[in-house]
Amino acid sequence: MTDFSAGAAWVKGRVVPIGEASIGVLDWGLTHSDATYDVVPVWRGGFFRLDDYLDRFMASMAAVRLDVGLDRGQIRAALIEMVAASGLRDAYVAMVALRGSPLIPGTRDPRYCANHFIGWCVPYVNIIPPARIAEGVRVYIPDDIHRIPEDCVNPRAKNYHWGDFTQGLFAAKDRDCDTTLLTDHAGNVTEGPGFNVFAIFGNRVVTPDRGVLEGLTRRTVLEICADKGYQIEVRALPLHELLEADEVFLSTSSGGVVPVAQVNDTRYGNAAPGPKGMAIRESYFDWMLRPDLRLEVVYAN
Amino acid sequence: MTDFSAGAAWVKGRVVPIGEASIGVLDWGLTHSDATYDVVPVWRGGFFRLDDYLDRFMASMAAVRLDVGLDRGQIRAALIEMVAASGLRDAYVAMVALRGSPLIPGTRDPRYCANHFIGWCVPYVNIIPPARIAEGVRVYIPDDIHRIPEDCVNPRAKNYHWGDFTQGLFAAKDRDCDTTLLTDHAGNVTEGPGFNVFAIFGNRVVTPDRGVLEGLTRRTVLEICADKGYQIEVRALPLHELLEADEVFLSTSSGGVVPVAQVNDTRYGNAAPGPKGMAIRESYFDWMLRPDLRLEVVYAN
Repeated sequence: MTDFSAGAAWVKGRVVPIGEASIGVLDWGLTHSDATYDVVPVWRGGFFRLDDYLDRFMASMAAVRLDVGLDRGQIRAALIEMVAASGLRDAYVAMVALRGSPLIPGTRDPRYCANHFIGWCVPYVNIIPPARIAEGVRVYIPDDIHRIPEDCVNPRAKNYHWGDFTQGLFAAKDRDCDTTLLTDHAGNVTEGPGFNVFAIFGNRVVTPDRGVLEGLTRRTVLEICADKGYQIEVRALPLHELLEADEVFLSTSSGGVVPVAQVNDTRYGNAAPGPKGMAIRESYFDWMLRPDLRLEVVYAN
Repeated sequence: MTDFSAGAAWVKGRVVPIGEASIGVLDWGLTHSDATYDVVPVWRGGFFRLDDYLDRFMASMAAVRLDVGLDRGQIRAALIEMVAASGLRDAYVAMVALRGSPLIPGTRDPRYCANHFIGWCVPYVNIIPPARIAEGVRVYIPDDIHRIPEDCVNPRAKNYHWGDFTQGLFAAKDRDCDTTLLTDHAGNVTEGPGFNVFAIFGNRVVTPDRGVLEGLTRRTVLEICADKGYQIEVRALPLHELLEADEVFLSTSSGGVVPVAQVNDTRYGNAAPGPKGMAIRESYFDWMLRPDLRLEVVYAN
């Protein structure tokens, strides 16, 4: 039997071990970072909000004019088939659309390329190890690296343009911080590598509206917060305001809700995860099991 | 005999047909566009300014903290071996350094990844088909897409962050233009997908100093222009000034010097390639054959 323990990929209609999934070195998905993608979690044997993730992926492909020759139903079926074959009960499931190579040799016209689709899944990923949460997650916001502006690269079409994040991560790791968060050129907080950010002020929850991916975990969190009676504010969030919050937390499909203990020199709640953030985190894992938001996978074994 | 007519690649010490060179779908070179690269031309059987390109590639790797485990001499030898094996006399030769995958499974720390190197070469590429030059190359500068700023992604470490260029190219192609050129947020001209830009005003040649790769063809052009007695100005070049130039041309390792006939609605010299730009183009191809700037390849066949 094929070993899918490290993950599986769906390539041209076949499910293969993740180690066999690759792209050519001339693919513009690599050489122009000309790709869009999305990541849906599988949790305890079921997809969470699969149709919402598919909606966003289809919208992202349209936004950057990628047509992979598969419709929504075919992509959906490919992901389900792949996860079922993989046997993975908790997984990080990626759908990727790439520009491919020119159909006319030598052309630089992005309209005429062999766009293609790859799906892949690996065991569930936590961008912050859960054990770090109790110890106190530390975030570093550099003052000399900013998030790529919206009028350069559209952040709502999820993309691989992470050069700013990577340099921010180096700066964070060099300072023994867990991750980085970037500001825009106007001094507002945007997002970090793979997550959105939230600030809690009493009964108010604020999350940025600009320079960010409109994350689906972010959407779930906004729904959870509304449910808990918080007043929601989706708007510009200046850095100085973030630093004055009662609590700060991150949201990501790769780990859910992650309370933050410290941003730069600012410690929240005695440098420990805040109680409100922890309660939202707990709710998020409950919501991940809500039947109306799930699609159970029928595994072969 | 192996068929290298479409190109060759150097992967882990072996030279393989280009179609066999690939990277895994989990490589951060793809998923974070975490890579740097360079492209050196081979022309009439010899590398042009190979050592200058290698110098820049080594500097780019250091700038983004990539260590591929090969020193400059090893990379140089790999490229020469690959081109010699390929048999290609006119080639576009890429050296690529990629972040690779985490050495510690699940980590998001860019300091601990298996960085790696791939070289590849394909038949010489012209980013603008030479036949288009006489017809009059047209460039489109959008007003709603800007070049990624320097404090987001360092443009001097050559990178694959082309999302802004790709959307600019779509806008250009939709308007029947050949390529795009982007401005920064201050209204200065920066660069286009794979090229620098120059403006000629009488005896003065101006090229931007900010938001650009310091191209080696750009350097050669500056040397040629100095040689021809032009006054050189490397500084901010506002868009309005570009539109008032006598002549405009592009410089690229993939085609050399390319005179431009039209930028948006502005036509230069009756919408034909300018005589000064054409003379610089001619000199560039002469310089490509200068023995002191070349390394002849010893081909097996």
